Amino acid sequence: MRTKYLEDFSPGEKFRTAGVTFDEAEIIEYARIYDPQSFHIDREAAASGPFGGIIASGFHTVALTFRSWLDLGLIENSSLGGPGIDELRWLLPVRPGDTITTEIEILEARPSRSKPDQGILRYRMIGYNQRNEPVITSLNATFLRRREAHNQV
Amino acid sequence: MRTKYLEDFSPGEKFRTAGVTFDEAEIIEYARIYDPQSFHIDREAAASGPFGGIIASGFHTVALTFRSWLDLGLIENSSLGGPGIDELRWLLPVRPGDTITTEIEILEARPSRSKPDQGILRYRMIGYNQRNEPVITSLNATFLRRREAHNQV
Repeated sequence: MRTKYLEDFSPGEKFRTAGVTFDEAEIIEYARIYDPQSFHIDREAAASGPFGGIIASGFHTVALTFRSWLDLGLIENSSLGGPGIDELRWLLPVRPGDTITTEIEILEARPSRSKPDQGILRYRMIGYNQRNEPVITSLNATFLRRREAHNQV
Repeated sequence: MRTKYLEDFSPGEKFRTAGVTFDEAEIIEYARIYDPQSFHIDREAAASGPFGGIIASGFHTVALTFRSWLDLGLIENSSLGGPGIDELRWLLPVRPGDTITTEIEILEARPSRSKPDQGILRYRMIGYNQRNEPVITSLNATFLRRREAHNQV
């Protein structure tokens, strides 16, 4: 898909990413560096731990699902980064072999008052596993270039 | 430091992590996989981009600062994972060479009503750069084992 600028998004619009499969080796590799808790990195300890096996770090899950949103290409040339994330929730464990597909619902596309060339896009992300169970939800925001400004350059 | 269980934490308590330095190669390597936007992965494009140079992915920043909290060892044997994060804010760019030191303030340590062996720890994390500017803030929660339950095992 081609880059969309701020005014190309409308509240209520929904997008769906390709599925991302979480490989056990990648789960462990990520967590060894970024979240080395036993239930993310140690198969034996994880088996007798709170989740009965290895689960992906929540930081890994949120990053890879965001990557799947980027991969749609919609904000490739319009993104100016994001101010943060609200209400991030890890609802269910993501286990090796799980495939997460993420739905993005646009909530708001509001021009900036102080910066006429940009605005803020607010959207809800819900990641579903292969059983269609929601495993991760969040409220995201990204600063986006406006189309007019882009065309004037 | 030794593992703390739920009742070992008190609201108002503060902890400070060791500093984490963001290396340019690591910033780029992380973002190539998890957040491949030009201002995270392409030095030339980033130089003429919104931040005037490469900046760390916010997912990288939140993960590495969380890692520095884990590295204190306080929740090594008591953590049961977390339900999510609220009000995550990336306040300032994190650039190659920046060193982030994170302050953790305990907000609440509340036993679970339904699970007598555990409870929830709520805490604010604020990451400061080497100029003591806050660059990342969040409200975190982690399920923790209770000490009594541990001693009974």
